[in-house]
Amino acid sequence: MEPPFISFLSDFGADGAAAICRGVMLSIARDAQIVDISHAVRKFAIRDGAYLLWSSLPWMPVGIHVAIVDPGVGTARRPMGIRTGRGDILIGPDNGLLVPAADRLDGIAEVRLLKNHDWMLPRTSATFHGRDIFAPMAGHLAVGGSFESVGETVDVASLEDLRFPAPLEHDGRLEAAVVYVDSFGNIRLAAGAADLAAAVGIIQPGARLRVVFEAVDGAATNVTTAAWARTFGTQPVGASLVYEDSSGQLAFGDNQGDAAARLGVASGSIARIELA
Amino acid sequence: MEPPFISFLSDFGADGAAAICRGVMLSIARDAQIVDISHAVRKFAIRDGAYLLWSSLPWMPVGIHVAIVDPGVGTARRPMGIRTGRGDILIGPDNGLLVPAADRLDGIAEVRLLKNHDWMLPRTSATFHGRDIFAPMAGHLAVGGSFESVGETVDVASLEDLRFPAPLEHDGRLEAAVVYVDSFGNIRLAAGAADLAAAVGIIQPGARLRVVFEAVDGAATNVTTAAWARTFGTQPVGASLVYEDSSGQLAFGDNQGDAAARLGVASGSIARIELA
Amino acid sequence: MEPPFISFLSDFGADGAAAICRGVMLSIARDAQIVDISHAVRKFAIRDGAYLLWSSLPWMPVGIHVAIVDPGVGTARRPMGIRTGRGDILIGPDNGLLVPAADRLDGIAEVRLLKNHDWMLPRTSATFHGRDIFAPMAGHLAVGGSFESVGETVDVASLEDLRFPAPLEHDGRLEAAVVYVDSFGNIRLAAGAADLAAAVGIIQPGARLRVVFEAVDGAATNVTTAAWARTFGTQPVGASLVYEDSSGQLAFGDNQGDAAARLGVASGSIARIELA
Repeated sequence: MEPPFISFLSDFGADGAAAICRGVMLSIARDAQIVDISHAVRKFAIRDGAYLLWSSLPWMPVGIHVAIVDPGVGTARRPMGIRTGRGDILIGPDNGLLVPAADRLDGIAEVRLLKNHDWMLPRTSATFHGRDIFAPMAGHLAVGGSFESVGETVDVASLEDLRFPAPLEHDGRLEAAVVYVDSFGNIRLAAGAADLAAAVGIIQPGARLRVVFEAVDGAATNVTTAAWARTFGTQPVGASLVYEDSSGQLAFGDNQGDAAARLGVASGSIARIELA
Repeated sequence: MEPPFISFLSDFGADGAAAICRGVMLSIARDAQIVDISHAVRKFAIRDGAYLLWSSLPWMPVGIHVAIVDPGVGTARRPMGIRTGRGDILIGPDNGLLVPAADRLDGIAEVRLLKNHDWMLPRTSATFHGRDIFAPMAGHLAVGGSFESVGETVDVASLEDLRFPAPLEHDGRLEAAVVYVDSFGNIRLAAGAADLAAAVGIIQPGARLRVVFEAVDGAATNVTTAAWARTFGTQPVGASLVYEDSSGQLAFGDNQGDAAARLGVASGSIARIELA
Repeated sequence: MEPPFISFLSDFGADGAAAICRGVMLSIARDAQIVDISHAVRKFAIRDGAYLLWSSLPWMPVGIHVAIVDPGVGTARRPMGIRTGRGDILIGPDNGLLVPAADRLDGIAEVRLLKNHDWMLPRTSATFHGRDIFAPMAGHLAVGGSFESVGETVDVASLEDLRFPAPLEHDGRLEAAVVYVDSFGNIRLAAGAADLAAAVGIIQPGARLRVVFEAVDGAATNVTTAAWARTFGTQPVGASLVYEDSSGQLAFGDNQGDAAARLGVASGSIARIELA
């Protein structure tokens, strides 16, 4: 029989908080297989966490997925469980973090409040629901507890939403939001190759693109050019490319360089792409 | 039957040293379940490591706990094993690192020198006792070796101690040491809510506090105010709070900000709190 | 029966890429025991990754070892499998990354191209062969697939090589390359204690050495002195030492300090050591 599978993502960083949650999970479900997705999510960056979950969970075994980026911990925001069409259960705060990933795992099948106090730690702190609520809930589900037992169902429409903004095309230009900057400094966009083709037409590898990045506050802009290319090594070291990334989305990067640092781009920035 | 449980903390950072220790443990105890607490402990910061162990181990299953922050590696400092009242065995250098956590796991039951050369690697380097002594000791204990076999007993009173400094109250003011700055920049103090009440009286959420932080060398001070509050989201973004943290201790933080960076506070600083 | 053992090293950093690969491996081989060596290898630094593999793998159980530092992903560089004399299988790009470690695991026994499309993901991206090729290959090997099945054999001599540069001795001076700077800032050299003895003669602990570090580009140099010593704690805090490190190689460090940061040394720099 396969051990229960739990994945775990947070903005807890590298000190003990993630390990404490793991300890709580394992104290309940000693045979659980726990895979850390990342605990280096930018602090409080719900959208960054949502992107990482969205890009990672399709590659994980069906299981329980705990995700915690939770600036509202201890306030009225609801602790939530989402059952997906694929059969996963996602556990975390109701702040939009879980929704894009759940959508991608064959959609949201059922949503429940996490209310069962028998599945929480006896004493619940106001600042560490990861340890006190989310981890023990995951542990109890991992040892075979039913999703029905976590708490009452909630209307899917009541979920806090944080879907990625849709790309815009006009005047031969694609406008897309930066949804993530990865650890290489590659800039991931909320648009696909088809969106680019719709804006600028079908282009061949090597075609030159003009890219304008607008900072989050709309003030500063940064203009650059890049080749449309399949992969980094097709370009000289340091040269830029726009490419279809491994999630099938558009991305902007520098070959062996950190494009986001060079250009001052962060998630939330806007990219405008047109033929150069 | 449950697999043996090993937790592991060090200041080894993210390159290969922690993995090498894990490899050694698993080469002896292939079915061990190893949970990393943190390998991002500030280099050489024994007290930081002691705090993380103290805050983490109560949430871990009873097991073997290896902790290495060991600036004295290869010198006369002793390699030590501590059996706790709860039944754990803590493994690490005798420099104070293990003591606060052991105290919290129902106290220190027995202390032994790690001397059994059959349970060390054949060749012991002068700079990597994690690999050569601590990891193989943990592996041999994990496969059922008895604690008696690690080496002779040692008087508990001979242990290097590093208990956290006690808080002081006088003139309506609480003085407490900063024992840790977490990855969010929250400042954890060596005092509890009862200590604050003893100093300033019973206060209600929202009460204003004046907090003076004194740098480690006693030179610079930084004066600020904060609300007494349950959790971060009760305050505006960027505003400060003093709260009872998830370990039941006092802490100072900024809602969605890095208080320690803003105020230049590090572990070892002193905080003085009074009514504003 | 023992679970299959997989170690995993990359320059993917702390966000989701390593976890995605782990998810793919576990989707194929649910009982695999996966140990992360490091995902904090300096981006694109093949030689740093090669050093970490070389220093780590001898301490790991015999198994499958996946290593990815792959600036050439998606170009003509070959995906490769290496079977070692000890019985391991190393999986990664043919850019030199795997060779020093394989040499150390009782040598290279057989080399094969990774070509079996049934052991890759159905759709192979141009930028994430970790997920699409290397991880599923490791998974299929972990569940008992034969090494013969990965693809055709390749001449060992055709492998990209990246062996560490040999030390030079002349005029009582040892010249050795910096092969790695560890997370403590200790500077690891491509030379052994015997090489130093050959250059400067047999020396006793405490002997003073003059060390010149030359930057990668050959321009800047930095001159310092250090004691020949067994371990850090033999020196005052902040003082420098040259020592035989835990891999049996020469290293330069500051007791409780970051020597590489202080001296501006990086992997690729050259060290020249003579009697002071």
